[in-house]
Amino acid sequence: MASIAKRFLSSSASPITLTLKPAPSKAHLHHPLPASSFPSGFILGGLHVGVKKRAGVPDLAIILSTSSTPTAAAASFTRNTFRAAPVLVSEEVLKRSGGWARGLVVNSGCANAVTGHKGLEDAWKMVEETDALLSSLSTDSNPGKETLVMSTGVIGQLLPIDAIVSGIRSQASTSPTRVLGDDFTSWENAAKAFMTTDTFPKLRARTFVLGDREYRMAGMTKGAGMIHPNMVPAKTELGPLHATLLGCIMTDVAISPRSLQSALTYAVDRSFNSISVDGEMSTNDSICVLSNGAAAPDGYILEEGTQEYETFKEELTTFASDLAKLVVRDGEGATKFVTVTVKGAPTYEDAHSIASRISTSALVKTALYGEDANWGRILAATGSVPSSDKIDPEKVSVTFIPSDGTSALPVLVNGEPIPVDETRAKEIMELEDFELQVELGIGEAEAKYWTCDFSYEYVRINGDYRS
Amino acid sequence: MASIAKRFLSSSASPITLTLKPAPSKAHLHHPLPASSFPSGFILGGLHVGVKKRAGVPDLAIILSTSSTPTAAAASFTRNTFRAAPVLVSEEVLKRSGGWARGLVVNSGCANAVTGHKGLEDAWKMVEETDALLSSLSTDSNPGKETLVMSTGVIGQLLPIDAIVSGIRSQASTSPTRVLGDDFTSWENAAKAFMTTDTFPKLRARTFVLGDREYRMAGMTKGAGMIHPNMVPAKTELGPLHATLLGCIMTDVAISPRSLQSALTYAVDRSFNSISVDGEMSTNDSICVLSNGAAAPDGYILEEGTQEYETFKEELTTFASDLAKLVVRDGEGATKFVTVTVKGAPTYEDAHSIASRISTSALVKTALYGEDANWGRILAATGSVPSSDKIDPEKVSVTFIPSDGTSALPVLVNGEPIPVDETRAKEIMELEDFELQVELGIGEAEAKYWTCDFSYEYVRINGDYRS
Repeated sequence: MASIAKRFLSSSASPITLTLKPAPSKAHLHHPLPASSFPSGFILGGLHVGVKKRAGVPDLAIILSTSSTPTAAAASFTRNTFRAAPVLVSEEVLKRSGGWARGLVVNSGCANAVTGHKGLEDAWKMVEETDALLSSLSTDSNPGKETLVMSTGVIGQLLPIDAIVSGIRSQASTSPTRVLGDDFTSWENAAKAFMTTDTFPKLRARTFVLGDREYRMAGMTKGAGMIHPNMVPAKTELGPLHATLLGCIMTDVAISPRSLQSALTYAVDRSFNSISVDGEMSTNDSICVLSNGAAAPDGYILEEGTQEYETFKEELTTFASDLAKLVVRDGEGATKFVTVTVKGAPTYEDAHSIASRISTSALVKTALYGEDANWGRILAATGSVPSSDKIDPEKVSVTFIPSDGTSALPVLVNGEPIPVDETRAKEIMELEDFELQVELGIGEAEAKYWTCDFSYEYVRINGDYRS
Repeated sequence: MASIAKRFLSSSASPITLTLKPAPSKAHLHHPLPASSFPSGFILGGLHVGVKKRAGVPDLAIILSTSSTPTAAAASFTRNTFRAAPVLVSEEVLKRSGGWARGLVVNSGCANAVTGHKGLEDAWKMVEETDALLSSLSTDSNPGKETLVMSTGVIGQLLPIDAIVSGIRSQASTSPTRVLGDDFTSWENAAKAFMTTDTFPKLRARTFVLGDREYRMAGMTKGAGMIHPNMVPAKTELGPLHATLLGCIMTDVAISPRSLQSALTYAVDRSFNSISVDGEMSTNDSICVLSNGAAAPDGYILEEGTQEYETFKEELTTFASDLAKLVVRDGEGATKFVTVTVKGAPTYEDAHSIASRISTSALVKTALYGEDANWGRILAATGSVPSSDKIDPEKVSVTFIPSDGTSALPVLVNGEPIPVDETRAKEIMELEDFELQVELGIGEAEAKYWTCDFSYEYVRINGDYRS
C-alpha cells in the first residue's frame, strides 16, 4: 500500500496523519433490469416513513404476492441467542401456516432487537397491517397470518410503530399514495428500503428453465457490516429453518413448502452462510423465499427428488451466492474481494470451518489491505480451528490465484515454503479480485468463502456508527 | 474520538486524510527492579547476533540455572497444527527429561515455523549449544538435553543458525564477550531479546512466602500482535503441556515437575489463555517455568495437595496475569485496556468462551476505539457463541464499570435496555481502563478476559509488517 509508517512512529505524542486508500466505487454494481426479468405475480415498493431521519430515503419495503395460487415460503434465521422480535415473529408465522406466506414487510434504521414485549407487539403489528393489505388482493386462501417481517438497524431501540403503521396503510389498494408496482423502479425502491450502511441497493434477477417452462426469480439483500451469517432453517413443523443478514428472493415457481425449505437450506449454506465482512453474527439475520406458482401450469408442484428440483436448487444456490457476494463487495471499507477456497478436506464442514477462520482473521485481512502475500498468516489461521488436528502439515499447499486468467502462484507446496517471486505476488495482490487456495491433501471435500479486507475505513465507519 | 467522517465520504475518489489518535505511551510500564527481587541461582542475558537487522538490538536471550539442585520445568505450548520447530523440540526435551530443564534459549526476528526438517535441525542445534554452556556450570545432573528453545518473528524463513551458534558460544564461561549475569541489566537485556513489535520490554519480579521461607519469581513475556493464545500443557509422560505467545518465569522454589506443570496449567488458563489483542493464535506460543530450588531448604520439595502449593499456585497465577496484561497494554495500536468479566454462567468454560468472543469482536473493539458505549454489539457477540443456547435473554445484564472508583453504569438489566446517560457513558469510555461486565444470571461461574481496542494503528502496523 501507498505509505504505511513504521510502528516506532506510534510512540510520538502528536497525531499522525494517515492517507486512506479509498474503497473502489461500487456504483456500477447497481443497474437497471428489464421488467421482463422479474417473476410474475408480485407487487412491491419502498417508501420513507421516518425510521431513518434523512427525508426521502426509503426505510420501509412491502412485498406482496398477487398470485391466485398459494405462495410457499421458506426462511433461514440467525442462531444468535438474542434473536430480534421480527425473527421470532416470522418464525412463528411460518410455524402456524405450515410454510405458506405471501407478504413481506421490512424496515431499516432500527433492528427492533432487545426490545422486550413491546418489540414483539410492534413486529406483530407490522404483520397484521400487511395482512390487511393482502386480504384485499386475491383469492389466495392461506390460513391466518400471511406476512413475514424483517428489521435492520440499531439494537435496543423501539420502532416508531405509528409511522410504520401509517406507511403500511398508505399502500391500501384504494389509497392515492400507493406506490406498489411491478416495474424496475418498484423493485429498486424496495431494495433501497433494505439499506443501512450499504452504498448501493443490491438487486438481481434471473430467468431459468424447468422442464420446458420458463420461470423467473428476483431478489434483494442488504448488509455491509456485522456480516458473518450463520443461519439455520426456521423451526417449524417442517424442521428447523436457518440465516443472518437480510435478503429475500421471489420466484414464480410452484413448489411445496417442504421442498422449498430444503432447497433454501442448501443454498444458504453455500451463499449467505459462506460470507464474512467482519466475523460478526447479527441478532436479525434473515433470508426468505416466496414462491407463488404464478408461472406454473395448473396443478404443477415441484417436489424434492426430481431432476427439475435439482435444477431449481442449483439455480437458487447460484442466485443466492450472486446476492451474497454483493454484500461482500459492499463490505464496510472493503477494497478487495477475495475468494477463499479450501480443498482436499475430509468433510465439507472441515473445509468450511477453515475457510471461515481464514476469512475472519484480522491478520490475513490487514495483509490483504496491505497487498502483502503473507501466507504465514493464512497457515496460522488454518491451524487454529478446533478440528485442525486432522490436518497433516506436510500435505498442505497454499496458492494465490489471480482473477485475470494469468498464472497461479504457489507459495507453499506439501508443507514446504517455496521461494516467492515477490514482484509476481504483488501483481496478484494489487488486483481487486483474487483467490486464496488452501489444499489440505487429506480428502475430497471443498468449500468456498467470500471475504474482504480490513481497512482504515472499516475502523472509521465502526468507531462512529451510532453518532 | 476526535473526528470520524461519515461513510458517504468514502465514495469520493480522492484519498481521505485521517488523523490517528496516538496510542498512549507505555514507557512507564518498564522500570528498574532491585537485584534483590530476582530469584537466586539464575544467570541470563540478551545479545545481538543478527537475526534482526538493526545493529545492537538484542535478538538472542540465554537463561541458565546455576543452582546445584535440580531444576524442574513445565511448559504450555500452542495447539496450532502448524507448531513451529522450537515448540516441537522443547516438548521433546521435556518428554525425554521427565520435566527437568535448566536452560532456555530464545531468539526473536524469525519464528522458525513452517521450516521443515532444516528448521528442526536448527532448533536442536540451539538446544545442544546451550546444553554445552550448562555443562560447564554446576553439578546438576539432569539427564540428556536440558535446554528449552523458543523463537518468535516471521513465519516461513530459516534461522541464520551460524550467527546464533556463534552467539551462544560467545557466552561460554571463559569467553571475554560473556554478558550473562544476575543484575537488573542482565534481566532487562534478556527481556529485550524477546521483543518483536513490542514497544517496551515486559519484565516483572515478586517476592512471596511459603511456610516461613521467602522465595522469588521473575519473568518476562513478549507479544503485541497475533495474540489470542490457547495453550495446552506439553505432552510429556506427565500429561499434556499447553500455550501461544512467548513467556518464561524463573523461581527459586523447589517443586516436583508434576506439581509445577499442574500449577502452570491452572495459571496459564487464567492469564495468557485469557488475553486477546487480535484473536490470532500463533504457531509459536510458548510459556515455561523453571524452578531451581535455590532458595529452598535441603531436601524440601513442594507438592500438590499442600497449603504451600495452593499459595504458590495463586502467586504463579497472579504473576502470570500481571505479565499477560502487559501484552494487552502493549497490544498493537491499543489505546484502551479493557477487562471483560462474564459472571453468573453455568460453568467456567461457558463464561470463558463468551468473554473470549466479546474480546475478539471487531465491532466491540472498534466501538471501544470510538469510545462508544454500544452495548448492542456486546450482546450480539454474547449471543453468537456455540454454547449460547444456555443463555436466557431475559436474565442478562450489562454494566460498564470505570477504573477510577466512580459509580458503575448499567445499560441492560434482566434483558431490558435502560435509558443510558450518554454523558456518563462517554466519561467512562474516555478512560484508558474500564470493565465490561456481562451477568448471565443462570449460574455461579465467572471468567475474566483482557482485551484492547481496534484502531487505525492496528491496520497500519499489520498492513506493513513484513516490509
